[in-house]
Amino acid sequence: MLKARNELATLKPYVPGKPIEDVMREFGLTEVIKLASNENPLGCSPVAKEAIIKHLDNLNLYPDGNCTSLKEKIAGIYSVSPSEVSLSSGSDEMCDLLSKTFLDHGDEVIMADITFPRYISTAVMMGAVPVIVPLKDFTFDIKGMADKVTDKTKLIWICNPNNPTGTMVPTSEIIELLDSVSEDVLVVLDEAYREFVTRDDYMMDSENLLSKYPNLVIMRTFSKAYGLAALRVGYILAASSIVTEIDKIRGPFNVNSLAQVAAYAALDDQDFIKKSYDVNKEGKEYIYKEFDAMNVPYAKSETNHIFFGVEKDAFSIFDALQRAGVIVRPMGAKHLRVSIGTMEQNKRFIELIKDML
Amino acid sequence: MLKARNELATLKPYVPGKPIEDVMREFGLTEVIKLASNENPLGCSPVAKEAIIKHLDNLNLYPDGNCTSLKEKIAGIYSVSPSEVSLSSGSDEMCDLLSKTFLDHGDEVIMADITFPRYISTAVMMGAVPVIVPLKDFTFDIKGMADKVTDKTKLIWICNPNNPTGTMVPTSEIIELLDSVSEDVLVVLDEAYREFVTRDDYMMDSENLLSKYPNLVIMRTFSKAYGLAALRVGYILAASSIVTEIDKIRGPFNVNSLAQVAAYAALDDQDFIKKSYDVNKEGKEYIYKEFDAMNVPYAKSETNHIFFGVEKDAFSIFDALQRAGVIVRPMGAKHLRVSIGTMEQNKRFIELIKDML
Repeated sequence: MLKARNELATLKPYVPGKPIEDVMREFGLTEVIKLASNENPLGCSPVAKEAIIKHLDNLNLYPDGNCTSLKEKIAGIYSVSPSEVSLSSGSDEMCDLLSKTFLDHGDEVIMADITFPRYISTAVMMGAVPVIVPLKDFTFDIKGMADKVTDKTKLIWICNPNNPTGTMVPTSEIIELLDSVSEDVLVVLDEAYREFVTRDDYMMDSENLLSKYPNLVIMRTFSKAYGLAALRVGYILAASSIVTEIDKIRGPFNVNSLAQVAAYAALDDQDFIKKSYDVNKEGKEYIYKEFDAMNVPYAKSETNHIFFGVEKDAFSIFDALQRAGVIVRPMGAKHLRVSIGTMEQNKRFIELIKDML
Repeated sequence: MLKARNELATLKPYVPGKPIEDVMREFGLTEVIKLASNENPLGCSPVAKEAIIKHLDNLNLYPDGNCTSLKEKIAGIYSVSPSEVSLSSGSDEMCDLLSKTFLDHGDEVIMADITFPRYISTAVMMGAVPVIVPLKDFTFDIKGMADKVTDKTKLIWICNPNNPTGTMVPTSEIIELLDSVSEDVLVVLDEAYREFVTRDDYMMDSENLLSKYPNLVIMRTFSKAYGLAALRVGYILAASSIVTEIDKIRGPFNVNSLAQVAAYAALDDQDFIKKSYDVNKEGKEYIYKEFDAMNVPYAKSETNHIFFGVEKDAFSIFDALQRAGVIVRPMGAKHLRVSIGTMEQNKRFIELIKDML
């Protein structure tokens, strides 16, 4: 019998939410609102679509494996060198690349619970040891994480603001952590939701920390505010020595051409990002107000989703919502996560859940 | 200092060919013909482009992580179960996935030299031991590979027909190998170039071998004949137990949405594949005839590229061709690989190289 690696024994395939079409078919619905995957309800910038259309006669050509233009553009925007940028097929792939590059058998990897699930799966895949620090009040316990550092620690994953709880820690806490750990410990700051942050104790230009902390990796994505989740493109900003190591095992053409041209174009449309921020903030405040009125407990969010508690079984609430045409994400027995949609979508969600709770 | 895994020490980043735009800029050219990456000179099917355009309003949504529709379509065409199909972001990613799923430290991986470079890099990445069996007459030495099987052998990579030499072995030889190895040895048959094969001792329906050999993996791609290299999509046909193991470490959204819809549509346009085959065959015979007239030695190809020898330094030939606007790929000191283009492109290549040799 063909045997897979032992490291895979405890891993389970990711179970994605059902596609909208499947939910429509299964429950005989003509309209379904998906508030399950923290996608941008406004779509993406029209300039991204135009860039794709212009590239359609080049589908036979391999992508630029170096992502030269996109890398230079990102480097220019954040005032780093192109050699300090590495592109990936979404943050999903970057978690895999970082783990494959740095994690040896037995290395300890510090992460929160609950947080982005790829941190733990890619650590286990490499035979590393996940060291789990529970959230405190649904928020990263940075001091608790610092306390867990040993001489076996190789990597610390910080999702700020966090998925799925939406909470954030002030950047000052992360700087304290960086000051306390040795430079041979990689600290990855996943800023997937940065464009939605409203608080001013969040350092928007965290790339300025890179010169002081050569072990810091800043991870960002085009899947959320930029609305390009379908295309798979994300990136890190990090010391060029880190980028060079990743390049040794990175697939030669890991970012598809349409992702490259669309992301490049989308960076020019900051009005779209501003509009996404505004719509998200308005929707968030509306849902807060309604949740408050219903006495639904929730975590204050700095993202495009809200983590909330229910007294009934969370899965049954999820199921009832889905049957009524609104898909959210159950998170354990007593919590759910709802992505913030357009105001119309938010109202439909609130209308339905009001009857259920 | 931050240390990468020891396994990466001998790995080097892949150095891709220069993008067409860079060659134009560097050498002041207004037209450049790229015959370097075995891309389809006819582009891709128009139905693939139409499918992309129809999907442009959904770029904000994550891909279907299960590739449900595409998987079912491929399964239907080849009469296997959808559970026996796994999609990837090109064969590049599938090499990585197979290696991560099955290769332990010290496992032996049998492969040829020269062949597709991802086999060795993903083996080394996992700490496995590459066991290299040189080509014989530029062709896979299947018996030589069988002789190298030990109780440490975990995987055998067979690229048939082979990249970059273009040669093939009859499927009967591969069946002999399958009969001789234990079922705990994975045999991966990479058929990236199958659509260009003209010989009748190549088993076009190799998927029929799967029921007899549960350790066989058949790998195919949309990057070559289908002309969708820009999008990154490939797949394997294999026992569902193999697919399930891969799913444990596969990124949840590893195949982007536009790749899924374009590949789905492209499968319907078999006229395009037939035309690609015809243009390739005609171009191949033309280049053979010209090479024969010039006494240029070459390997008989069953792919869309030709591997040929030169007396001068191969890099200087590559360089001179590039300066004249035709990009090919140097392969060591005395060989080059040229992709078969349109007849016009082939004629330009021959015209130039005639003067150089």
